[in-house]
Amino acid sequence: MPNPDPVVLREVGLRDGLQILPRTVPTAHKFEWLREAQAAGLREIEVGSFVPPRLMPQLADTAELVAFAGTLPDLVVSVLVPNLKGAERALASAAHAMLLPLSASHAHSLANLHKTPDEVVAEVGRIRDLRDATRPSCRIEVGISTAFGCTIQGAVDGDEVLRLVQAVLDQGADQVGLADTVGYADPLQVARLFERCARVAGARLACGHFHDTRGLGLANVFAAWQGGVRRFDACIGGLGGCPHAPGASGNVATEDLAYLFQSMGVPTGVDFERLLALRGHVAQWLPGETLHGSIARAGLPKTLIA
Amino acid sequence: MPNPDPVVLREVGLRDGLQILPRTVPTAHKFEWLREAQAAGLREIEVGSFVPPRLMPQLADTAELVAFAGTLPDLVVSVLVPNLKGAERALASAAHAMLLPLSASHAHSLANLHKTPDEVVAEVGRIRDLRDATRPSCRIEVGISTAFGCTIQGAVDGDEVLRLVQAVLDQGADQVGLADTVGYADPLQVARLFERCARVAGARLACGHFHDTRGLGLANVFAAWQGGVRRFDACIGGLGGCPHAPGASGNVATEDLAYLFQSMGVPTGVDFERLLALRGHVAQWLPGETLHGSIARAGLPKTLIA
Repeated sequence: MPNPDPVVLREVGLRDGLQILPRTVPTAHKFEWLREAQAAGLREIEVGSFVPPRLMPQLADTAELVAFAGTLPDLVVSVLVPNLKGAERALASAAHAMLLPLSASHAHSLANLHKTPDEVVAEVGRIRDLRDATRPSCRIEVGISTAFGCTIQGAVDGDEVLRLVQAVLDQGADQVGLADTVGYADPLQVARLFERCARVAGARLACGHFHDTRGLGLANVFAAWQGGVRRFDACIGGLGGCPHAPGASGNVATEDLAYLFQSMGVPTGVDFERLLALRGHVAQWLPGETLHGSIARAGLPKTLIA
Repeated sequence: MPNPDPVVLREVGLRDGLQILPRTVPTAHKFEWLREAQAAGLREIEVGSFVPPRLMPQLADTAELVAFAGTLPDLVVSVLVPNLKGAERALASAAHAMLLPLSASHAHSLANLHKTPDEVVAEVGRIRDLRDATRPSCRIEVGISTAFGCTIQGAVDGDEVLRLVQAVLDQGADQVGLADTVGYADPLQVARLFERCARVAGARLACGHFHDTRGLGLANVFAAWQGGVRRFDACIGGLGGCPHAPGASGNVATEDLAYLFQSMGVPTGVDFERLLALRGHVAQWLPGETLHGSIARAGLPKTLIA
């Protein structure tokens, strides 16, 4: 493998990491977070979510974050958008991309979005129409959540995931990703489901989102990478732990993902020292919160230190 | 994959897990450890090491443990043997297998065994002669340690690993394994080195030994498994953490490995509940010691609970 493709790590800590925390991080700290993440070489950041502020006061400053992130060079700024109303706000902002979650678990979809998966598919179509009419440059990415299983419903059928991938592409989604929202996936399942989805979506299958709840996060990333995925979500410090699994880590840690790829000789563009410095600041901004991830504790191996 | 090959998890906690701890676990607790590990379905256990007791008082009861383990049904009992003197004791015991460590790092070999790798190769030949003359049924397995890098020397050349694999096979080792002693390996490196070694050793390449120091332990196991390895060392609770990397976990945790394979539908024969019960007892026997591993904290996913 003389010149491996680079991999993009999308930092989602400001959204997925903060949304479950009871505290609200001051906007000034989030600005610093964005600035340091960009300086550490991260080139895609999900800065927040256009949900009603009364539901998620932690993310109420999303519009300000989009505006600020837009001033940083070479940064793709994305936001999570749960519905058409959120999309209106995203399209009125300067966000480069909207991430629309669609749960493949019927039960999770109802609990989380109060809609069936097919109602969300229809909403994707409406968002696409609005996007085309107002700001066609804004990319629409659908993240199929609970694609590998669900804490409410249990197993999620791969056929149903495939059907939904096809349905959102038919509704005009530009890209689609698969998310192991609750940390149920195993690497064989990841390899198989990504392979099947790639046959449907081709290059539009553009992201893997894994949680490390049960320790398989990096093995799952590796399996997806073997299958051709070149873009992964991650949270600095493994933020995003599930409140129902005490001590379990959340999203795969950005710094661990950067280490995985760096150790394999796959370029990520990440400056490791700066990324760890950001992690240290995040720890200060979230006192009492447990950060996860291995490489920050153990340090780089001698073989990777310049 | 309708009927995947089963995988053997060799529990090495009683040796690799305990050897770096300052405390000595009472032999009665070790007996209980062995009893519970066997009852949990583990079928290979490394019970200790025939090193001089003044060097490792923690393992001074190895002969007693071999004798006791031999009374448990369906259990392959192995011991670590650093040299001919240790092999004499192993052959005088009823151990089914001797594990001989050979460091591919010249610097580590000198620091750890006070011999060059080639001096260890010669010792393998002497041990083989002794074994053939005294108890031919006792299997000789050579574990190539620091095969993926070394904290002292840094990089370890794959060609040197291959040369040593060939050399110990020429000296009459029955089996050989590769060990990432210090947690430096990455999954691509694992895939490549195991593939190359399999070409030399064929079915005699029989074990993968990984540490989770930098979070890649399970990804490395998965990569080795993809390459055909069907036997892995592991420590209950991820014991064996390196004292030079505070907070970093040690060996891959047996229960996490069992979960990895169970989630992929690969039989291990392990009874998960009983394994977690053993983990709980090990925690009691090692008060103040941090156990590692993810699945014990997060619990099995709904999809795997009967």
